[in-house]
Amino acid sequence: MTLSPLPDMLLEPFVHNALTEDLGRAGDITTDALIPLSQKWKGALVARQTGVVAGIDLARLAFHLLDPSIRFSVNKPDGSVVRPKDIIATISGSARAVITGERVALNFLSHLSGIATATHNLVQGVKPHKARVCCTRKTTPGLRMLEKYAVRAGGGSNHRFGLDDAILIKDNHIAAVGSVTKAVQRARDHAGHLVSIELEVDNLPQLAEALELPINVVLLDNMPTSTLVKAVKMVGGRFKTEASGRVNIDTVKAIAATGVDYISSGSITHSAQILDIGLDEA
Amino acid sequence: MTLSPLPDMLLEPFVHNALTEDLGRAGDITTDALIPLSQKWKGALVARQTGVVAGIDLARLAFHLLDPSIRFSVNKPDGSVVRPKDIIATISGSARAVITGERVALNFLSHLSGIATATHNLVQGVKPHKARVCCTRKTTPGLRMLEKYAVRAGGGSNHRFGLDDAILIKDNHIAAVGSVTKAVQRARDHAGHLVSIELEVDNLPQLAEALELPINVVLLDNMPTSTLVKAVKMVGGRFKTEASGRVNIDTVKAIAATGVDYISSGSITHSAQILDIGLDEA
Amino acid sequence: MTLSPLPDMLLEPFVHNALTEDLGRAGDITTDALIPLSQKWKGALVARQTGVVAGIDLARLAFHLLDPSIRFSVNKPDGSVVRPKDIIATISGSARAVITGERVALNFLSHLSGIATATHNLVQGVKPHKARVCCTRKTTPGLRMLEKYAVRAGGGSNHRFGLDDAILIKDNHIAAVGSVTKAVQRARDHAGHLVSIELEVDNLPQLAEALELPINVVLLDNMPTSTLVKAVKMVGGRFKTEASGRVNIDTVKAIAATGVDYISSGSITHSAQILDIGLDEA
Amino acid sequence: MTLSPLPDMLLEPFVHNALTEDLGRAGDITTDALIPLSQKWKGALVARQTGVVAGIDLARLAFHLLDPSIRFSVNKPDGSVVRPKDIIATISGSARAVITGERVALNFLSHLSGIATATHNLVQGVKPHKARVCCTRKTTPGLRMLEKYAVRAGGGSNHRFGLDDAILIKDNHIAAVGSVTKAVQRARDHAGHLVSIELEVDNLPQLAEALELPINVVLLDNMPTSTLVKAVKMVGGRFKTEASGRVNIDTVKAIAATGVDYISSGSITHSAQILDIGLDEA
Amino acid sequence: MTLSPLPDMLLEPFVHNALTEDLGRAGDITTDALIPLSQKWKGALVARQTGVVAGIDLARLAFHLLDPSIRFSVNKPDGSVVRPKDIIATISGSARAVITGERVALNFLSHLSGIATATHNLVQGVKPHKARVCCTRKTTPGLRMLEKYAVRAGGGSNHRFGLDDAILIKDNHIAAVGSVTKAVQRARDHAGHLVSIELEVDNLPQLAEALELPINVVLLDNMPTSTLVKAVKMVGGRFKTEASGRVNIDTVKAIAATGVDYISSGSITHSAQILDIGLDEA
Amino acid sequence: MTLSPLPDMLLEPFVHNALTEDLGRAGDITTDALIPLSQKWKGALVARQTGVVAGIDLARLAFHLLDPSIRFSVNKPDGSVVRPKDIIATISGSARAVITGERVALNFLSHLSGIATATHNLVQGVKPHKARVCCTRKTTPGLRMLEKYAVRAGGGSNHRFGLDDAILIKDNHIAAVGSVTKAVQRARDHAGHLVSIELEVDNLPQLAEALELPINVVLLDNMPTSTLVKAVKMVGGRFKTEASGRVNIDTVKAIAATGVDYISSGSITHSAQILDIGLDEA
Repeated sequence: MTLSPLPDMLLEPFVHNALTEDLGRAGDITTDALIPLSQKWKGALVARQTGVVAGIDLARLAFHLLDPSIRFSVNKPDGSVVRPKDIIATISGSARAVITGERVALNFLSHLSGIATATHNLVQGVKPHKARVCCTRKTTPGLRMLEKYAVRAGGGSNHRFGLDDAILIKDNHIAAVGSVTKAVQRARDHAGHLVSIELEVDNLPQLAEALELPINVVLLDNMPTSTLVKAVKMVGGRFKTEASGRVNIDTVKAIAATGVDYISSGSITHSAQILDIGLDEA
Repeated sequence: MTLSPLPDMLLEPFVHNALTEDLGRAGDITTDALIPLSQKWKGALVARQTGVVAGIDLARLAFHLLDPSIRFSVNKPDGSVVRPKDIIATISGSARAVITGERVALNFLSHLSGIATATHNLVQGVKPHKARVCCTRKTTPGLRMLEKYAVRAGGGSNHRFGLDDAILIKDNHIAAVGSVTKAVQRARDHAGHLVSIELEVDNLPQLAEALELPINVVLLDNMPTSTLVKAVKMVGGRFKTEASGRVNIDTVKAIAATGVDYISSGSITHSAQILDIGLDEA
Repeated sequence: MTLSPLPDMLLEPFVHNALTEDLGRAGDITTDALIPLSQKWKGALVARQTGVVAGIDLARLAFHLLDPSIRFSVNKPDGSVVRPKDIIATISGSARAVITGERVALNFLSHLSGIATATHNLVQGVKPHKARVCCTRKTTPGLRMLEKYAVRAGGGSNHRFGLDDAILIKDNHIAAVGSVTKAVQRARDHAGHLVSIELEVDNLPQLAEALELPINVVLLDNMPTSTLVKAVKMVGGRFKTEASGRVNIDTVKAIAATGVDYISSGSITHSAQILDIGLDEA
Repeated sequence: MTLSPLPDMLLEPFVHNALTEDLGRAGDITTDALIPLSQKWKGALVARQTGVVAGIDLARLAFHLLDPSIRFSVNKPDGSVVRPKDIIATISGSARAVITGERVALNFLSHLSGIATATHNLVQGVKPHKARVCCTRKTTPGLRMLEKYAVRAGGGSNHRFGLDDAILIKDNHIAAVGSVTKAVQRARDHAGHLVSIELEVDNLPQLAEALELPINVVLLDNMPTSTLVKAVKMVGGRFKTEASGRVNIDTVKAIAATGVDYISSGSITHSAQILDIGLDEA
Repeated sequence: MTLSPLPDMLLEPFVHNALTEDLGRAGDITTDALIPLSQKWKGALVARQTGVVAGIDLARLAFHLLDPSIRFSVNKPDGSVVRPKDIIATISGSARAVITGERVALNFLSHLSGIATATHNLVQGVKPHKARVCCTRKTTPGLRMLEKYAVRAGGGSNHRFGLDDAILIKDNHIAAVGSVTKAVQRARDHAGHLVSIELEVDNLPQLAEALELPINVVLLDNMPTSTLVKAVKMVGGRFKTEASGRVNIDTVKAIAATGVDYISSGSITHSAQILDIGLDEA
Repeated sequence: MTLSPLPDMLLEPFVHNALTEDLGRAGDITTDALIPLSQKWKGALVARQTGVVAGIDLARLAFHLLDPSIRFSVNKPDGSVVRPKDIIATISGSARAVITGERVALNFLSHLSGIATATHNLVQGVKPHKARVCCTRKTTPGLRMLEKYAVRAGGGSNHRFGLDDAILIKDNHIAAVGSVTKAVQRARDHAGHLVSIELEVDNLPQLAEALELPINVVLLDNMPTSTLVKAVKMVGGRFKTEASGRVNIDTVKAIAATGVDYISSGSITHSAQILDIGLDEA
C-alpha cells in the first residue's frame, strides 16, 4: 500500500486559515521590523526525534502561500521514518517568509507527524500478527481529513470519516429498536448498497445473535483477550472483526494475537504527542 | 482571576465546521435509520478522569446547532476540577440530536479539557512559588483561540496570540540586525506604544547586554536552573522574566524556585492527552 | 424505509446562498416599493402536477431566513405523492417576506420535487420486481447533498456520495493496473475495512474473472437484458448486482426483470424536469 | 452579438466547491489506489449529441485546480454547435488528475450545455421572426450566474438577474397598491434612473390602462396568440413586449409570429436535459 | 418615497465580520477583566451633531449578535433628521455586551449616517429644483450595499450597483468601437431588455450625435452650467440627463438650476465625514 | 522606521470581495460588449492631488485577479509623497481587464491614500515636537487591517488593533470596579504578561491616583493644553502619555508642544477624504 498525497486544493484552506490566525491584523511585526526585505535564508526542517513524517505538503504550503518563490525540496516524504538530525526538507528563499511561516509549518508537520508516529508504533507493535491498526472519529475538530491522512502515513488504516459514510450500530441504537436483529435489518434497508454496516457487541451472547446477520464488520468492544479469542473463533471469517478499548503500545500485541482483523485506537489521533521537528539555518 | 466565556458568536463557526465535517453529505445515517424522530433522551456528560473542564460552551453548541430545543444544564463550568463520575452537564431532548452531536461535543470538550488539565497540573506543580504558567504559539492549527482559552481555564496565562500582537526577538532576528541593542531599538521604533517587546537570550552575557534596553520581558531559553537564578538576580525586577525549555511536571517546581515570573510550555497545547469524558444515559 | 430530514444547519447555507443570489445588492426593489411593511399575506404552496414532494424544509427556510415570524405549516411532507391542487404547505405572515422569498422557495422545492418524481416514476416502473433504483454522481455541481436526498424522497437508494466513500473500479483503472484481479486486490489493500468495492464490467468474460474476487457490488454496464440475465445467474448472489445504461421509464421494468439488485440512473438527477408548484394566495 | 467569457475569478469558487463536494474527506480513493502518480493520460471531451457548448472554462478549471500543469486545448468554444463525435477540447497530463476531475468537469459542461442547447433550440424555432428568447429567475439555486451565461451561449438574452436589478410588477403588487397606474408611479419614484420597469398584464383591459405609463417593458402573460397579436398592436412600439407562458419548441414560432419582442422561458433553465458529453481516451 | 430596510440576513454577515475583526482571538479583555457578568447597563445612542440617521439595524445587530437578550428600542429610524442630544435608540441589558459591542455599533452607525447626512445636504441644496441627487460606484470596497442604502436614507437615489446591472459607455469604450453610434448600437444588441444604457458625453457635439440613439440616460460630465443649460435643451426630454463633476454643496444649486434630472456625486460616499454619535449611560 | 508590505495572501480576500461586489452576476457588461478581447491598453495611475500613497498592492491585485498577465510597475511605493501628475504606477495589458478592474483599484488606492495623507498632514503638523500621531479603533467596519496599514504609510503609529490585544480602561470600567486602583490591579491580574495596559483619565486628580499604578500608557482625554502640560509633568516619564480629543490640523501642534508622547486621532481613519487618483491612458 502506497500513500497518496491529498491534492493541494484540499490542503490550502487549512494552511490559509492557520496563517491568518497567526498573522492576525498586522502580520509578523517582529520580522517586519528587523529582517530586511531582501535578506535570504537557507536551511532545513530537521527531525529531533525518531518518528514518521506526515504533513510535509502543509509545511510547504505555509511557506508558499507567503512567498511562491521559496524553494522547498523534500528529502523525507510523508510516511518516511526519520531519526534525530535527519533532514526532512530543505528550504531557501526570502528570510522574512521563512521566519514568518516557520511556526505554522512546524505546527502542522509536528502535529501530523506525531499522529503518524503514534500509529506507526502500534503498527510495529502488532507484528507479526496480521491485524491492521485503524483510527476512530475521535479527532481534533476540523482537522479530521488531515489526521486520517496522518494515520495512513503511519501505516494505519482508516475507519469511517463521518457519520455519513458507514453504519455503526451501538448499544443505544439497539435499545431504541429492540433487538440486534431488527437493528441490522432496518439499517440494511435504509442504507445504500455501497454502505457497510458495523455492529458493536460487548459480549459473546450478543455476538451469537449477530452471526447470521448481514453485517460487514463486528466491533468487539472492551473485551478481554480471552474473550476476543473466542469471538474470533465464533465469527469464523463470516465478517471482519475489529477490537477496540484499552489499546496501547503495551496491549496491542496481545490483542493482535487473538486473530482480530482490525484494532482501532482513539489515542493515536486524540492524544498523540507531537514529533519534535525544528527549522535549522544552514 | 475569574474565567470569562468567549461569546457564542466566536464559538459557533468552530462547532458548525466540526459538525459539517462529521455529518458529511448524508448526515448520521445510523441514527436516522434506527432512532425514531420522536424519541427522547436524558443523560449527562460525565468525567471518567480527574482533571479540569474546558469547552462546555462548545459542547452545548454542538447539540444546540442540531436542535435548539435541547435542554443543557451545566454542573461544572469551565475551570472546575472534576473527578471520575462527576457530572459536568445534564442533557435532555431529542434522542437523535443528542446521539448525532455526541462525538463533536466530546471531541471539543475532551480536547480542551485535556489542555486545561495539563495546564492545571503545571500550575499546581509551581506552588508555592509565584511563577505563572503560560502557553506558546505551538497550538493546533486553526484552534488557537480555543486552546489559549483552555489554558486560561486551567489557571494558566496567555503568551501572545499571534505574530502581530507582541514583539518577540529571537536569535535570527538579532543576527540580521547585528546586535541585541540595535534589534531592540529598531523594534521599539517600529512598534506601536501598546506593543510589548520580549527578548530571547540564551546566556548571561546576552542578558547583560539587554539589561538597559527598553524591553518588557526577557525570555530565558533553555537555561539550567543555576543559570536562571543568576539571570533573575541580574534582571532585578527591571522587566518580567520568562523561562522556557524542558518544562514538564518534573522540572517545573525547580524552575519556579529560581524566581522567574513566567514559565512557558509548548506541550500543554501541542501534546496534552485528552481528558476522558463520556456521555451516559440517565 | 422512512425518510429522515437533513438537519436545518446543513440546509441553511444553501438557502442563504440562494437568497443572497436573488436579493443581490439592493433586495427586492419591486416589493419594497409597492408592498407596505405591515401588510399580511396568507396562502399556500400548491402542486400543479402529479409528483412527489422533496425540499419542503428548504422552502420553509427561504421564508424564515427573511422573517422568522412567518407561520409555515406542512401538509404534504417530503416523500408524499401530490396531485394537482394539493396543498403542500400553508404560509401566513408578512406579505413582503413571502413575496420576496417565493422564487427561492419554489426553485428549491420544484427542482428537488422534480428529482423525487423522476425517481418515483422509475421506482413504480420497476414493480413488481425487487430491484431498487439508485442515483449516480451525475448531479448538479454543489447540490449533491440535496439531490441525493431528493432521490431518497422519491423512494430511490443512494449510490456513493463522492470519490471518497466507496471504490468504483472502471476500465481505465483496470487498464492502468493490468488486470481485474490485480485491480481489486490493490483496491482492497488500500481501502479501509468499511469501504465497499464495486467493479464495473462490460461483458461476461470480465464478469467471469471477477467472480472470486473480494468485491461487494458488480456494475453491469450497458448490457442487453439477455446478457443481464446471464450475468445475474453467474453472480449467483456472491455480491450485489447493479445495472446501468439506457435506463428510462420505458426500459426499467425489463431491466428489473433480469433479477439485478440495483438499477442506477443518471437522468433522475441530471435531467429531471421540475415539478410544477405554485404559491397561491388564500 | 459575441459571447464574452466570465472571468476565471468568478468561476473558480463554483469549481472549487464542486470538487470539494466530490473529493470529500479522503479524495479519489479508487484512482489513488490504482493509478500510478506518474502515469499520463491523453484524450478529449467529445460530444455524444448535437447541441451547443457552454461551460468549457469550468471544465478546464476542474482539471487545473487539481493540477495546473494539465494541458487543455479548446476546439469548440462556448456557443459552438457540436455534433456527435465532435471534439470539444483535448486534454493531456497526469492521469490521476484527469480521472479525478472528470465527473466535475462533465457535470458542469453537460448541465450548462444542456441549457445552451435548449435555448438554442427555441432561438432556432423563432426564426424568421425578430423575437428574442430570454430566461427567467427560475434557475437552479446558487447557479444563476452560470445558467444565465449558458442562456447567452445558446443565443438567448437575459432577463433580470435578481430581485434587485429591475422592477417587475405582478398582480399581487398591483393588488397591494390598488391600481396599475399607482403601482407604476410608485415604482418609478422608488427606483434609480437606470432601473427598468416591467409590468405584467394578463388581459387587454389591463394593457390599455398601462399604455400611457412610464414603463420599459410589458409582460404579456399566458395570452393566446390571438390576444398577443392585439396586444402588440395596442402597444405600438411604446415599449418592449415580452410574452411568457406555455413556451416550448412547438409553440414558440406561433408566439414569435405575433410580433412580440421577447419570449421568456423558464424551462430552458429549470428543466433542460443535459447535453451528453464524454471523456474519451486518445 | 419611503425607505425600506434591508433584511437582517443581508446585514448580519457585515456585522459578524466587524465584530470578529474587533474581538480578535481573545475577545474584549478589558471588559472581561473588569465588568461582572451579571452587571446591567442602560443607556442610549445619542446624536452629537445635526444629521440624518442610517445604519440603526447594523447597530442593533452588533449588540444582538453578542447577546440576543439586549433590549434595543429605536427612536429615530433611518432617514430621520437628528439634532445634538437627540436619542436615536435606547439600549438596556448586559453591561458586558453593550460595552463590547459599542465601537462596532458606532462605527457602522456614524459611517453610514455620515453618508446619509452628506447626501441630505446636497438634496437640500438642490431645492427648489427637481434634480435628484445620486451616488456613483466610488464606494468603500466591500460596503457598497450599505453605502448605497445610506444614500437612499439621505434622500438620494442610486446609480448602478455594479458593472453588471446597467451599461455606462465612457470615452475609452467609444474609442475602442470607433463612434458613439456604433458603441450604443453594439451595447443595445448585447444587453438584456431590462438593462438601461447611459452614455457619457463631454461636449455638445458628442451630445448631438447621441440624440437619436436608443439610450436611457446621458451623462453630462464636467460641463460648465452654461453648457449644461444648452445640453438639457438639446435633449428635450428624449432621455434622462445626469450631470457629474465638481458637485458640492456650493455648486449643486446652480447645477440643478440647469434643469438636469440627476446630479451624481462621488464624494457623498467616498469622502463623507462621519456623523458624531455617542453611547451615553442613562 | 520603514514600511513593511502586508503579504498578498492577507490582501487578496479584500480585493476578491470588492471585485465580486462590482462584477455582480454578469461581469462588466459594458466592456464585454464594446472592447475586443484582444485589445491592449497602456497607461498609468496618476495622482491628481498632493498626498501620500497607500494601497498600491491592492490596486495591483485588482488587476491581477482579473488577469495575471497584466504588467504593473510601481513608481511611487506606499508611503511616498506624490504631487499632481505624478505617476504612481504604470500598467499595460488586456484592455478589458484594466478597464474592468479600474474602479476597484482606485477605490482601494484613493481610500487608503486619503488616510495616509490625513495622517501625514498631522505628522507634519506635529513637528518639531517628538509626539507621534496614532490611530484609534474608529475604522471602517471590516477594513481595519488596511486602514491601520495606511496610517503607518502616512508616518503614523498604530493604537491597538482590537479589543483583544491591549487593555484600555475607561470610565465605565472604573465605575464598575469602584476605583482606578482596583481596576488597574484587576486588569494586571487578568492580562497576559505581554499585554499592555492603558488608563484613560479626564482630569488631574484621576491622574494623581494613577501615578503609582502598573500601567504602560495614560490616555489624557479631552484636556486643554494647559492641563496637558501639567499632566505630562506629573507623569514625569513613569509611563507613556497619549492625548486625545479635538485633534486636527489646527490644534495638533499645540497639543504636541505640551510634551505628550502620542496624539491619537479618530478622524484620520473615519473621516479622511480620499486622495484623488486617476487612471490615464498613455
